[in-house]
This record gives sequence, structure tokens and C-alpha cells, in this order.
Amino acid sequence: MPAAFADRLIEATRRTGPLCVGLDPIAEHIPALFGRDERAIAPFLTEILDLAVDRAAAVKPQLGFFEASGAEGFRLAHELTREAQGRGLIVLVDGKRGDVGSTAEGYARALLGAKPGFDADAATVNPYLGLDSLEPFLKAAEDRRKGVAVLVRTSNPGARDIQGLQADGAPVWTHVARMIAPETDRLAGESGWSGLMAVAGATWPAEAQELRRLLPRSLFLVPGYGAQGAGARDAVAGFVPGPHGRLEGGIVSSSRAILYPHGAQTASSLDDWRALVGQAMDRAKVDLEAAIAR
Amino acid sequence: MPAAFADRLIEATRRTGPLCVGLDPIAEHIPALFGRDERAIAPFLTEILDLAVDRAAAVKPQLGFFEASGAEGFRLAHELTREAQGRGLIVLVDGKRGDVGSTAEGYARALLGAKPGFDADAATVNPYLGLDSLEPFLKAAEDRRKGVAVLVRTSNPGARDIQGLQADGAPVWTHVARMIAPETDRLAGESGWSGLMAVAGATWPAEAQELRRLLPRSLFLVPGYGAQGAGARDAVAGFVPGPHGRLEGGIVSSSRAILYPHGAQTASSLDDWRALVGQAMDRAKVDLEAAIAR
Repeated sequence: MPAAFADRLIEATRRTGPLCVGLDPIAEHIPALFGRDERAIAPFLTEILDLAVDRAAAVKPQLGFFEASGAEGFRLAHELTREAQGRGLIVLVDGKRGDVGSTAEGYARALLGAKPGFDADAATVNPYLGLDSLEPFLKAAEDRRKGVAVLVRTSNPGARDIQGLQADGAPVWTHVARMIAPETDRLAGESGWSGLMAVAGATWPAEAQELRRLLPRSLFLVPGYGAQGAGARDAVAGFVPGPHGRLEGGIVSSSRAILYPHGAQTASSLDDWRALVGQAMDRAKVDLEAAIAR
Repeated sequence: MPAAFADRLIEATRRTGPLCVGLDPIAEHIPALFGRDERAIAPFLTEILDLAVDRAAAVKPQLGFFEASGAEGFRLAHELTREAQGRGLIVLVDGKRGDVGSTAEGYARALLGAKPGFDADAATVNPYLGLDSLEPFLKAAEDRRKGVAVLVRTSNPGARDIQGLQADGAPVWTHVARMIAPETDRLAGESGWSGLMAVAGATWPAEAQELRRLLPRSLFLVPGYGAQGAGARDAVAGFVPGPHGRLEGGIVSSSRAILYPHGAQTASSLDDWRALVGQAMDRAKVDLEAAIAR
């Protein structure tokens, strides 16, 4: 039996740091080196995976970008998931699904199930439909030693509109956290961490600390670091001291700043491009390492 | 330029009634007549489309079921969308997507955009991430004369958990309605109806009436009728009298009761199966017609 997802993820972050590389393929931003239009996406992302090994704990394909290329894009997301796992990277498929009953079971099978599913290590889900809508994902994760990352407090400004509403004296997102808290044990590993993750935007560091109190064992998936403007300290605001004294408790996602760093689009050779992207990953890695070492 | 989505949908409901056939392919429930395992899904659903013409205003592929078959399933959902539109049926792709920024743009392109997108007539979206997460869908719908159906009050029991929280004296789902209300004009047609639809579960008829007050011009997408237990009267609780005196203002979705009626799985011939499924559609159509004629 494989180790629990939570143990695999925390182990990866202790080894390489908490960086998660978001896979957001945008054909217009990919250097001509990789070919023209959408055919450039596959070779580009394969190179990204090679560069991410030993620099990132995980990668996060954003399904919206892949689905925009139709069934071919969907197939590519599947292939990249397998390629990333083959390189020892943990894969969180970011589809933000949410549905009820047998439809939710379908999504759970699609994302966490064996082939023809993604067989991803974890998947992001949207809690607006309530706890019964999350159950099929939790069940699949339990059965297959996977993780589930629930959107709690997203990094965008509009997160205020619904997540930030005050309900019974506390914001809606805290109710989401309380709703999932009793389920965290189901995906707990031997490390004490749970693979029932919470998405906690780096743009709301104070809320991340409150969320840590509500969900002491949940690993966090932290978007909003890098291109969205939050710094490394804010990104790890919900982390806590681990066994080696460094802060731990989740992964910090960065996409655009890493995939499309300044100058990379016009790099004159593949080696130059590799150097630029590798440096962008190293910058994020070092930046996050400084934040968790404080 | 094609007519606005709202006008096309309301016209279809005036012509055939408000039935929307949910396309929930479940291989185990499909008669052996169509073949074994997942290869049975495509011919089964093609027959369903033929039977739905003149009986249903729209069809609603549930992406969760298709994605469970991997990229092939995703491709099939694309093909069925085109086949349904070729038969004059309106297609709402039910993926309940929700994301931010360029990822949301990717989903909007994937669902409402031209090939390689679905080019669906409308798509369901989840509002938990706030108004800025809906904007790319609204923009795509505006540009391409499409519709967007926002989850407001879903039909499942767990809808209480988050949607039912009291925030500033009113449930969260009413805040979602108020959040989208100022946008309804953007997708309004000449009929006065708006293609900025609201999902309003048939299991909550009193709330559907309140939702109608909050969103007087939004067409409703009503799940929960049939297999989920709500009757036709409850399903049309948010409808209002139209120009011909009958109630109108949305579509009522039914999946399981229509796709898998009693006896159909063991039908001895395709003709027998067609008769059983046709009758199941007719029952729903007549049931809904009685409810809107009151």
C-alpha cells in the first residue's frame, strides 16, 4: 500500500521546499522554440516538468487551460499527470469541481480514479454545494490514498463577495472550514498531517492563520504567490514549525512567474530558455526557503 | 447574428414545454442492446437525442459522467453537443466550473467558445469565488449570444450547509442572487428574459419564488424534478405567466427517470426501448404541461 497522500506531500516539501509549479499553458506566451500555436504546449510543459524535479514538491495542472483546447487538451492533461508522476512529482489536478451524488462520483473517478481517470494525487473541489457534494471525493481519496483540496479562501479580490460574507458572526469561509474539520481524520497520515487540504490564498495571511487554528492538521494549498502579488512570508502565514524547526504545512503555488519569466519568450536557444526558467524556479525556491527558515 | 440565448430558450419552451433532458451516461444502466461497457454510451445517447426532439427544449450533458471515461468521454461530450444542436436542441453543458482570471477565461472558451470549444448554448458555473470569477463567462456569453447558469440554490440536502447560512439576515444564496442581479441586463433578449440563468432546485419551491423576486428576468434551470423527488408544481414554483397565459421562465431538468425508466434496461428490442423512453419523456412533458397550464 502506498503511503498516505499527506505523508508523501509533507515529505516532498521537507525534501525540496513547499513550491508547487502551476501548469497554466498559454500558447501566446510560449517561446517559438517549442513550435507554433497549441502544438507547442506539450513539449513546453514536458521541459517544465524536467526543470521542476528537485525544485518543486508538486505540480498543479489548471484544467481550464487544457480544456480550452478541447478533448486533445484534456488528453494532454492526462499525459502530463502521468509524466509528472513518473518524474517523482506529486500532481494536484486543479479543476475546482463540485457536484452532487453520482455526478460527483463521476468527477471523483475522473480525477482520482485509475485509468481512464487521471489517477492524480489530489484534486481541488468547490464546497458551495455542501458537505454531501464533497463526500464522493473524500471517499475516493480514502480508498485510494489520495488528497482533496477544498476551496476555502481563494486569492482573488472577488473572494470577498461570498466567502467573506458574515454569517452568524463569522465569515462564510470559516463555516466551510468548520464543515470539513470533522472529516480531516479520514485522510490523516502517520505524519499527523491530513490530505484533506484547504485552499488558503496567499493574499489573505491573517485569514490563513485563523484557518490554521480551525484546521490544525490540514495541509494548505496556497495560490496567489508571485504573479498575484503576495510575498513568501504571506504565503506561509498558515504554516507551523515542523520537526526540523522550519515552517511547514502545505505547498505554495506559482505559475506565471515561473513558466513565463522575463526574457524567456524570446530566448535564442533551448539552453538559454532552460537557464531562465530554472533560475525563476530557483528564485521562488530560495524565497520560500528563507520564509520557512525564519 | 443569431437570436439571444434567452430568446431562443424561451421560444423553445413555448413550443415544446420546459423539459430539459439531463444526459447522465451510466454504463451499468444502459441496456445491453447498445453494446457492452462504455462503448454503449455514444449510441445510447444518440438515440436519446432523437427521442428528445419535439419533446424537450434542451439537453444538459453532465460533464462529470463523461470525464470519468477520460479524454474519450470528453470528446464524446463535444460530439453530442454538436449532434444535439444539429437536431435543433439547445445544449446547456453542466460542468459547474468556477475559477479566476485567465483560468476562468479558459473555461469560458472551453464551454462557450467555437471549436475546439464546446460551442454550447450555455454553461453552468459556481459562484463561490465571487463576481470576478463569473466575469469571463458573462463576457463570453455577451460576445457570442450564449447563456450562463449560476448555481444559486441547488437541489441536494447539503445545499443547506453553505447556501443556507444566514448572512446579514438573509441566506447566502440570496446574496448570490443579489450579486448577479445587476448583470442580468447584459444577457437580456428581446423577450425580456435574460440568459443569465439561476439554478434553483425543485426541492426548494418557496425559495424559488423568493428567487424570482430577486431575479425577475433570469431564466431558471431547475434540477431535482423526477428522480430527486420534487413534483412538477414545485419545479415550476419560480415560473410566471407568459404571453399565452401559461407559466414560463425556465427549464426543468430530468435525467434518470427519463434515461433509465422501469423496464427499459431489459427491453427485448430497440423499438421496445424507444417506446419506453419516449413514454417516459412524454410523461414528464405532460406532467410539466399540466403544472404550467394551471
